[in-house]
Amino acid sequence: MIADRLLRDLLAAWPVGRLATVDDAKAPHLVPVVFCPEGDALYSPVDGKRKRGGLLKRLQNVAANGSCSLLLDQYDDDWRQLWWVRLDGIGDVYRPTADHDAALRQRLLAKYPQYRTVPITGDDPVYLRLRWTKVSAWAQTDLQISVRRALARLG
Amino acid sequence: MIADRLLRDLLAAWPVGRLATVDDAKAPHLVPVVFCPEGDALYSPVDGKRKRGGLLKRLQNVAANGSCSLLLDQYDDDWRQLWWVRLDGIGDVYRPTADHDAALRQRLLAKYPQYRTVPITGDDPVYLRLRWTKVSAWAQTDLQISVRRALARLG
Repeated sequence: MIADRLLRDLLAAWPVGRLATVDDAKAPHLVPVVFCPEGDALYSPVDGKRKRGGLLKRLQNVAANGSCSLLLDQYDDDWRQLWWVRLDGIGDVYRPTADHDAALRQRLLAKYPQYRTVPITGDDPVYLRLRWTKVSAWAQTDLQISVRRALARLG
Repeated sequence: MIADRLLRDLLAAWPVGRLATVDDAKAPHLVPVVFCPEGDALYSPVDGKRKRGGLLKRLQNVAANGSCSLLLDQYDDDWRQLWWVRLDGIGDVYRPTADHDAALRQRLLAKYPQYRTVPITGDDPVYLRLRWTKVSAWAQTDLQISVRRALARLG
């Protein structure tokens, strides 16, 4: 298990997660995503450019089947440093109010300075929201030490 | 699309993938894995230590539902460098002959010097085999250049 405080620190700082959703035919769909945490949910913006031509596959999937999983981990040639943290829960297609959208943009911009020059969403803001219900974690040696060390390396 | 040659180079050298399998209730399961390619299949060993107490969830899933996906990508603070390559296909619980097991061990050891001191499998060798049927790829700028640069960085 991962301590709540460490999980919060990880979600606030870790830049990338790999998101799995599942379609109606039980096939997984896997993409790397950026995200910000708020309460017991994560918000991953869907950028405007990619939204044209219909809902992204990941959004189609959570619209049809909410089961959703996000994996945070870092590979290291030193296998003693390996760790992962996984959040399983329910995903949905989230269209925020203008106020909530502004709050989410502020969080994302604070976490990702890259968004100073990249649009966070299209004109019609859409997020994949993951409300997690289960947290799993594993480390080759010590989870607390490995994750803290990885966070420290982020600089 | 990714050129076949580049895909082969990537699979031969890239050390980590994130593997998604799906259970009977359409819930995804996500873990980081090591693997080696052979022909149009990837082999991910299941280490002996973790196998006790029944089949791992990922193996239970592919035994019940073969749909399986592996994502290769690298996060970079410079978003122009972002890329991912995804292999979708059929996973199964693979118990090799002694000869094939020896060949797979040789490949894994060549790719991962870490296996000099870590057992590759338990006494009863089991691999998750992924036979891919579809390759997808994306890059923020140029896939060929971004992947080649990432491979060069592996050293």
